[in-house]
Amino acid sequence: MKLLRVGEPGAERPAIVDSDGKYRDLSSVVADIDGAALSSEILANIAGTDISALPEIASDSRIGACVNGVGKFICIGLNYVDHCEETGAAVPEEPVVFMKATSAITGPNDGVIKPKGSEKLDWEVEMGIVIGRDARYVSEEDAMDYVAGFCVVHDVSERNFQLERGGQWDKGKGCDTFGPIGPFLVTRDEVKNPLDLNIWLNVNGKEFQNSSTKNMVFGPAKLVSYLSQFMSLQAGDIISTGTPPGVGLGQKPPVYLNEGDEVHLGIEGLGEQRQKVLPCPY
Amino acid sequence: MKLLRVGEPGAERPAIVDSDGKYRDLSSVVADIDGAALSSEILANIAGTDISALPEIASDSRIGACVNGVGKFICIGLNYVDHCEETGAAVPEEPVVFMKATSAITGPNDGVIKPKGSEKLDWEVEMGIVIGRDARYVSEEDAMDYVAGFCVVHDVSERNFQLERGGQWDKGKGCDTFGPIGPFLVTRDEVKNPLDLNIWLNVNGKEFQNSSTKNMVFGPAKLVSYLSQFMSLQAGDIISTGTPPGVGLGQKPPVYLNEGDEVHLGIEGLGEQRQKVLPCPY
Repeated sequence: MKLLRVGEPGAERPAIVDSDGKYRDLSSVVADIDGAALSSEILANIAGTDISALPEIASDSRIGACVNGVGKFICIGLNYVDHCEETGAAVPEEPVVFMKATSAITGPNDGVIKPKGSEKLDWEVEMGIVIGRDARYVSEEDAMDYVAGFCVVHDVSERNFQLERGGQWDKGKGCDTFGPIGPFLVTRDEVKNPLDLNIWLNVNGKEFQNSSTKNMVFGPAKLVSYLSQFMSLQAGDIISTGTPPGVGLGQKPPVYLNEGDEVHLGIEGLGEQRQKVLPCPY
Repeated sequence: MKLLRVGEPGAERPAIVDSDGKYRDLSSVVADIDGAALSSEILANIAGTDISALPEIASDSRIGACVNGVGKFICIGLNYVDHCEETGAAVPEEPVVFMKATSAITGPNDGVIKPKGSEKLDWEVEMGIVIGRDARYVSEEDAMDYVAGFCVVHDVSERNFQLERGGQWDKGKGCDTFGPIGPFLVTRDEVKNPLDLNIWLNVNGKEFQNSSTKNMVFGPAKLVSYLSQFMSLQAGDIISTGTPPGVGLGQKPPVYLNEGDEVHLGIEGLGEQRQKVLPCPY
């Protein structure tokens, strides 16, 4: 199933994509697409619903973030071998973990605000794992039982804030609008092999990233198991699994985003995002 | 005012400390002590309530985290000059920012779980700033208008996970129970000078940390203003302002927490926490 949230910011309704690609209103089945809706039971309820009988939603409606009420937005750094090379970093021996502020989460096509003082605004297309139920100390073998599905994440980054303003990365990862997620939460059953998906990103029509999730250093089962050794994971948490090569920082010379630029990104089977880079309205 | 949350985990009621130090049930005035309750208007409502007429709560009741539904748990590293010295780090030129998982938040006296594989479990008493309303690009002069109050935070840390397991610090900061907050959210009007408070921590009765918040490198107004340049802050967010010297890592040789150890910490005017170090129950 492809689940989504449609409507104006703060007033999104839960929806599902039908067999014709139309959006159908799921409000009569679940209150929202959030942690509470991601249990096997409720997902089975949705799967058992006659989708064709649900009200259709206009296809040009705004799409919100595909999960509401995300508790933790956990990111994995340097998780594609060739992305490590372009940044000059060694391939990590174990996952590199950092956090994105949940206040950065936005709809997939809402636009990215260039923060005040931003000089090095960069892109990173990533596959997101959406947690379906509480996970603590789970084995790699069992890990996928705790995953509700997958989504496209744009891990927007400000390299100056991230790397040149003292210490840790989180400062350059959590600006408002730096976390578009969606359009869809694609349930696990619909993603035959999450480690064999084309993943790509264009800026102003020029291809910068084009790889496959098979180039990940640590795959989804390993990441869920690994993280669950350090913190409990809750339904609705998102793990963003790192970006393939081709970020702006890795170009020679580096290329960064400016106001008016258009970013188009996607992952095979998980949908696409389009963002315009916007001036800071504050 | 001293606000708190009293009751069993997940069933806490909002409460307030009366002039005799007794806890009074605030359920009839606010639904919870969370972001929604921290606006000036609702805090004024509480201040205008006849506290002595509210039901008394038994003084031996469990105390929960002093804020519910924390959206972001932001931490400042190396923010006391002499703590920088003990860790061998330079005094930062601008605040070092990292994130604690919100799933780490727990009541002030609930106990700290020693995670599986933990070898270097360490303590850090810190003053927490509780945000009262949305803050974006606020000046240092205006910053305190966005603060609802202050609380004691124990930034429990696992130094092996934080420093020896690849890259960023967040991995060693977000384990379950690594974020006791409270007992009280002390409103801003009641803290005459947040930069002149005794801050201390004992382990098994031995004093390890004893300093003053006046030794902070960056004070609360600066931190709120600074962070608001990188991410919006929301009501109920917590900023933990760093720890003074005396952490276990800084002892010669280092001293770490073991199961059964008792930690007692506090900040002048903000209350005290007592935690026992517990074996991992999972």
